[in-house]
Amino acid sequence: VETDDRILISREPLNAETPLGRQVGTITPLRRHFVRTHFPTPRPPDRLVIDGALRAPLAFSADDIRAFPSRSLVVTLECAGNGRSFLDPLVPGEPWRLGAVSTGEWTGVPLRLLLELAAPTARAVEVVFRGADRGTPSELNRPIAYERSLRLREALDSDALLAYAVNGEELPPEHGAPLRLVVPGAYGMASVKWLERITLLERPLAAFYQTERYVIGGVPLGPVAPRAIIVDPIDGAMLPRRPLLLRGYAWSGHAPIAMVEVSDDGGRTWAAARLSEAHSPYAWREWQFAYDPTDRDGVSFLPRATDAAGNEQPLAPRWNTLGYANNAARPTSVRFG
Amino acid sequence: VETDDRILISREPLNAETPLGRQVGTITPLRRHFVRTHFPTPRPPDRLVIDGALRAPLAFSADDIRAFPSRSLVVTLECAGNGRSFLDPLVPGEPWRLGAVSTGEWTGVPLRLLLELAAPTARAVEVVFRGADRGTPSELNRPIAYERSLRLREALDSDALLAYAVNGEELPPEHGAPLRLVVPGAYGMASVKWLERITLLERPLAAFYQTERYVIGGVPLGPVAPRAIIVDPIDGAMLPRRPLLLRGYAWSGHAPIAMVEVSDDGGRTWAAARLSEAHSPYAWREWQFAYDPTDRDGVSFLPRATDAAGNEQPLAPRWNTLGYANNAARPTSVRFG
Repeated sequence: VETDDRILISREPLNAETPLGRQVGTITPLRRHFVRTHFPTPRPPDRLVIDGALRAPLAFSADDIRAFPSRSLVVTLECAGNGRSFLDPLVPGEPWRLGAVSTGEWTGVPLRLLLELAAPTARAVEVVFRGADRGTPSELNRPIAYERSLRLREALDSDALLAYAVNGEELPPEHGAPLRLVVPGAYGMASVKWLERITLLERPLAAFYQTERYVIGGVPLGPVAPRAIIVDPIDGAMLPRRPLLLRGYAWSGHAPIAMVEVSDDGGRTWAAARLSEAHSPYAWREWQFAYDPTDRDGVSFLPRATDAAGNEQPLAPRWNTLGYANNAARPTSVRFG
Repeated sequence: VETDDRILISREPLNAETPLGRQVGTITPLRRHFVRTHFPTPRPPDRLVIDGALRAPLAFSADDIRAFPSRSLVVTLECAGNGRSFLDPLVPGEPWRLGAVSTGEWTGVPLRLLLELAAPTARAVEVVFRGADRGTPSELNRPIAYERSLRLREALDSDALLAYAVNGEELPPEHGAPLRLVVPGAYGMASVKWLERITLLERPLAAFYQTERYVIGGVPLGPVAPRAIIVDPIDGAMLPRRPLLLRGYAWSGHAPIAMVEVSDDGGRTWAAARLSEAHSPYAWREWQFAYDPTDRDGVSFLPRATDAAGNEQPLAPRWNTLGYANNAARPTSVRFG
């Protein structure tokens, strides 16, 4: 189902892709930003508690949070299951195509600031983020809260925000109002919504969404794998036979994008696309590629991203039982005539 | 009149300020972006003509324009009359306070690209941009089109865009759909809306909005003068007597912002504010300033911007008959108790 704004995957809980064909510029308009939820949208928590291995527990109202110095970052968020529906054999889980990725300007308090204020003890090693959303996953027989953790060191070193606004607007309910985490470079599951509690632990978190999900062969997912996509033309388009301009986006959670290439022969040969300027270290980058079809009746374009750390997007999927991080290059086929 | 979204100055033609107190992050949501129009919103032109001193006239449909390589830039636009209502004695013209300034991510075709394609003759020195909006200014007795020009050299050197989208959305009617100019660093009058014709001239343009308006003492306005504003707290606020955080924005069309200072004693002494990271060379920059009122009952804060070219915001207005470029520092007064 494609509404005006998003492509609905499931209504309850709400899961929806952004229509990538309508993406221009860096920012995704809020009403088109993809949404990933595990449980029904909860009642907004009225405060944020920080507790566990620290000097003394703290509690903040929404107003308290806004009184801290703020920071704004343009961040691309991508669901770990983006591209899942292209795995063969198909795996369970939301059947995302490529639209579980969007970019917003997120405004909030640096996580680092609140953690330093909370003064974790010397034994604290991990930070758990708990959302107000809860429910019973089909694999369990009891309700749980959505919980994810970061290593304390990683949390302190990151540019993560506790965000209360996006694109200059109050955070909307489906994006985690009043307060959500935004972890640049990590898959979306790290950016816990409806944040109600931050807990410092002296040992790693054992929790369903930390150790049973968002793992590949038991290993936690790393940073977002590099990916380039084509947004214009759309797959299956019939075009006049004249020079055309491919337009797309590329991103990686490991490092800035270094190169995008396009193949018109299934990956045998590649030509470099033109990268637009980077608007943020944490946002996708637009790219464009001029192509002259000359006497061809049709062509299948394959885009491939490489990041500055040398990670290259693969041509074949790396199949895994839960269907995560499938960043294999996807073709866009068009016909001329 | 303050609607939910904008502060209306006049309905026909539409002139409205952005509510600065609601600005967070860099981007201004579109429905809150200030609007400046000289005449009623015209019917959208169906093509853009480029003519005059060039090899041969060209005409482009909206689709033609979108087929060119695109570029996206985050640009702060400010009306030349912003701050006019603070001049004493008051002058004619729209009584803007400080909200005739907003920031968008504009997407379009680089002006340079179209000009190079048009191949101006060696005698061309100026580029005229004509909007589809027309009417009879009260000072004239005949209808005219809205027209503004740039020197050809300046146009080729600039990062000006012919924009068809803003904040990831189609350009709305009040912002000049289907195509408008966006000239970074210049006051808003240069960014002609509803663009229907670009004409290369062999002499400077003589036209009402070029030579009779947007001049100070006959001299055309230069780049946007540096300005810092406070958006939070709002002027006249009553606050609890405890440490507070001032939040504001600063911009200059001459050069990047180098420094923002705040005075709590009417400009006798100044302390530096903390500048947030720059998200774009052409956008305002957020700044924050922590203040402890201790035993004061009230205070009047004065913000002042200095840019990297050494231009410092003045404390007193530079009065002029048409009320342009009044970037004098404006106080925000609050009371504690």
